[in-house]
Amino acid sequence: MTVLRQFARPPGKRRNKTRSISFGMNMSDKRVYLYDSTLRDGQQTQGVDFSAADKTAIAKALDELSIDYIEGGWPGANPTDDAFFANPPKLKNSKLTAFGMTRRAGRSASNDPGLTTLAQSAPIVCMVGKSWDFQVTEALGIELSENLAMISESIAHLKSQVSEVMFDAEHFFDGYKANRDYALAAIKAAYEAGARWVVLCDTNGGTLPDEIFDIVTDVCTHVPGGNVGIHCHNDTENAVANSLAAVRAGVRQVQGTLNGLGERCGNANLISIIPTLMLKMGYDVGISHEQLTHLRRISHILDERLNREPTRQAAYVGDSAFAHKGGLHVSAVEKNPACYEHIEPELVGNQRHILVSDQAGRSNILARFREIGVEVDPKSDAVGKLVEAVKQREFDGYAYDGAEASFELLARKALGELDRYFRVTSFRVIDERRWVDEQDEQVITMSEATVKVVVGDGQFMSVAEGNGPVNALDAALRKVLLTVPEYVEAVQQIELIDYKVRIITRGDGTRAVTRVMIESRDAEGNSWSTVGVSTNIIEASYNALRDSITYKLFKSGVRSQHA
Amino acid sequence: MTVLRQFARPPGKRRNKTRSISFGMNMSDKRVYLYDSTLRDGQQTQGVDFSAADKTAIAKALDELSIDYIEGGWPGANPTDDAFFANPPKLKNSKLTAFGMTRRAGRSASNDPGLTTLAQSAPIVCMVGKSWDFQVTEALGIELSENLAMISESIAHLKSQVSEVMFDAEHFFDGYKANRDYALAAIKAAYEAGARWVVLCDTNGGTLPDEIFDIVTDVCTHVPGGNVGIHCHNDTENAVANSLAAVRAGVRQVQGTLNGLGERCGNANLISIIPTLMLKMGYDVGISHEQLTHLRRISHILDERLNREPTRQAAYVGDSAFAHKGGLHVSAVEKNPACYEHIEPELVGNQRHILVSDQAGRSNILARFREIGVEVDPKSDAVGKLVEAVKQREFDGYAYDGAEASFELLARKALGELDRYFRVTSFRVIDERRWVDEQDEQVITMSEATVKVVVGDGQFMSVAEGNGPVNALDAALRKVLLTVPEYVEAVQQIELIDYKVRIITRGDGTRAVTRVMIESRDAEGNSWSTVGVSTNIIEASYNALRDSITYKLFKSGVRSQHA
Repeated sequence: MTVLRQFARPPGKRRNKTRSISFGMNMSDKRVYLYDSTLRDGQQTQGVDFSAADKTAIAKALDELSIDYIEGGWPGANPTDDAFFANPPKLKNSKLTAFGMTRRAGRSASNDPGLTTLAQSAPIVCMVGKSWDFQVTEALGIELSENLAMISESIAHLKSQVSEVMFDAEHFFDGYKANRDYALAAIKAAYEAGARWVVLCDTNGGTLPDEIFDIVTDVCTHVPGGNVGIHCHNDTENAVANSLAAVRAGVRQVQGTLNGLGERCGNANLISIIPTLMLKMGYDVGISHEQLTHLRRISHILDERLNREPTRQAAYVGDSAFAHKGGLHVSAVEKNPACYEHIEPELVGNQRHILVSDQAGRSNILARFREIGVEVDPKSDAVGKLVEAVKQREFDGYAYDGAEASFELLARKALGELDRYFRVTSFRVIDERRWVDEQDEQVITMSEATVKVVVGDGQFMSVAEGNGPVNALDAALRKVLLTVPEYVEAVQQIELIDYKVRIITRGDGTRAVTRVMIESRDAEGNSWSTVGVSTNIIEASYNALRDSITYKLFKSGVRSQHA
Repeated sequence: MTVLRQFARPPGKRRNKTRSISFGMNMSDKRVYLYDSTLRDGQQTQGVDFSAADKTAIAKALDELSIDYIEGGWPGANPTDDAFFANPPKLKNSKLTAFGMTRRAGRSASNDPGLTTLAQSAPIVCMVGKSWDFQVTEALGIELSENLAMISESIAHLKSQVSEVMFDAEHFFDGYKANRDYALAAIKAAYEAGARWVVLCDTNGGTLPDEIFDIVTDVCTHVPGGNVGIHCHNDTENAVANSLAAVRAGVRQVQGTLNGLGERCGNANLISIIPTLMLKMGYDVGISHEQLTHLRRISHILDERLNREPTRQAAYVGDSAFAHKGGLHVSAVEKNPACYEHIEPELVGNQRHILVSDQAGRSNILARFREIGVEVDPKSDAVGKLVEAVKQREFDGYAYDGAEASFELLARKALGELDRYFRVTSFRVIDERRWVDEQDEQVITMSEATVKVVVGDGQFMSVAEGNGPVNALDAALRKVLLTVPEYVEAVQQIELIDYKVRIITRGDGTRAVTRVMIESRDAEGNSWSTVGVSTNIIEASYNALRDSITYKLFKSGVRSQHA
């Protein structure tokens, strides 16, 4: 038994830094190379369609993280990839790779247009080919020996034209199980023809970690592990474990994508693999500890490009990855974070979140105050009231888990630190639909909102239309606030980027309560979330909206014109 | 080398059924027990707040899948869990378990109110306790021997009161690494006191699969594997692999949650573990192959309860799990699915999706018609129009997966089988709030709706108030329909039991669309779901409402008074 890993800590920080590892194998070479396929295999994802500009932006992010190889795409396969390789991004740390396939059957390598395009596209080339006998005879319909010739001739030919050549052995694990000797012959053909890397692909994603370990162990007795790579898919939710198992068995290149993007269930997620290799398994992946602190941001850059909400539960980098909800847990976390955190969140650019919830005890709520920078004396009277206020609100259906801004406003208001910026004395929303023909095809619609607002000594009234009642109400309220000179700069920056509605039925048979969550953003890229609750969706939306505007005004240091 | 698994196929289907497995260990006992913690650990998820009704619905779904143990919650910890255990669901296949902790320090087991509550809550009890010496001395601040006494006395005491007792060894893997002897002593204390199961918890989720395998192998030389369970978290994206590694090392109980719900990065995902254990590793988990075909639906039931979009890329059950994007792959898949599919999708209730393929769409839609009992001739003209209509609606943001009633209405309308029962020519909703005091404590609210409706030769107009705009609109519309003698009986039965709103953003930066789903019920206990989509939430709600009423009238065989 040789399990001696400690909790991962940043270099030079407190606590024991020993990270002894013993795998019972030769670990003299601790350098593992990373190969990112976000721009090629990631492009196969349902609903993903990168532009050349997207590709350039993502390549730059990968370069910043110092990923060894960035696979840019398949030149000749589509106009986007052609445009990208015609004007490739300048990279500081990473090397650009072009993907393609071995020469066609019955053609010489030097006379294959695909190989010619590849050679002209990038200094490093990765070619895919068959290693499963069944695929050779059935899908390609050629002799097994011709396939081996295609592999070795293509590798040898490109090896003379570019600086580095790799071979992706498609369906390697299925091929190995069906005909071990042929699968090994295919990768040996590539290796012996000069391939820097021979990459074993679990193309349909069905292989399990123990199988990967056993097969890779065998492979590494035929091709040195320092020249073998692994390419996994997540069809059984084991892509990360499969990649790690292959590294333990000897491979020294790992292929994957940012956030596990990829066809079907995705590729192996480099965002999870990188910190595990570095912090838990002691490998050098060419990324410094300083660069590792950008991991969360790099993960979010991809989500931005895809216009997707980042996954809260993502390992290492998700908003929830270091979030603590249970009351008992929280006091334990504060005593010693290692109890409920497997690494220090800052190592990957993440941070601890103490959640407020029904389950939460007093220590939860106090910790949460400290996190948002609200200092309170735990013994003061105000705290007890505040805790009660939070619990009452949560009982009413408020959820502050995802609405930090509303929570901060509640706390600051209770502590007397928050001025009121405006007071809405009334609003009215009118929503009308009128169908003018028998077939209900022509409809006249109108959503109009009126608000009356007091700001300082002034009384204002405004009216606005919108594409729905909430949109109209938002427009009317802004119309008033934009007439207050002190507020203009802050208010005009606020952009609503997400709006979520949930109906909560508390207990059985009671009337439904609507909870609205709004996410807002300002011109500097800050974002914040607010929550509103009511039996009436318009009132719930108004509450969240009011908090969003108030929060921005407060954070901008605007002086209230109201009080 | 002993990797001989074949692609998993349904029993009795074509192709080689051999699924030889050799792990180099005793595999005589192939029964693995499943323990679901969705209702307890899943409740710890950020943003998740189950009602007692949610818990009952999820427990029934788990029961349908035949999960061995369903952990219902922690009685005494919060009012929801108390309400759930006070009125537990009737289960056909599964056993309900209550969670709690071992007795407090310095108290006798028989005098511990927590244990008393547990004993009264369920016939099976799972208690958590410490196995990490550091946690005992630091977090609890007690002697190491007192902790062992707390474990054995609590187990022995409850063993005499309920039918089955389990012990969850919190932080077991960290404890083992810090002080192997003490960690083993803790679980042996539980086992020897009569615990049916001793469950090893990787509480902070930081342990890797090879460590799990090594430690569990050692544990099973002290406590029989047939009495050992595993409880993993996904903080390194290895929770599934960790659970499988523990099974390979000998444990015979796996704890997890539906869809990997859970604190931080989630718990081990039973939805991924179940098919892998059954189809790839040859274990019996107490689930029949027929029940396994409900896996996808059970996964979606949880998402529905959480008002979440199901994860497209989810292993086995995601919409994309067997989706193939154009070109080469598709023809290869059609020649031989095993090339790009690791199992047959139907085994888990999923299906192959060939993207950008009219053919697939058409047969898919026809299959759905058959499912709801609408017989159509595939060659008729109407079908082409119907397929186009469905595709257009889905492009607009409609989702018919959870709204069978709206889907049936669409089909019957296109086939000319549906009369119109009423025609709303216009509606107007006015929603007003007026705050009468400076503190915003007194508020006058008004939600009023006016509708104009044509039924047969008659024109009707009515006005009603509600607790919100949709409620008012519903009331006004019913007021009219209840004046039509032929409609009264059906309409007065309709009860709206659930109302869900989701905001969908289509493409990049385009305007948000609101999708409303309404679930209705009648006096005979039938329930049906309808959907409405619009940029305006009130219009979306109206569409769903109109479908709900129309569906009930149609199903009741009421003759239309309109046409």
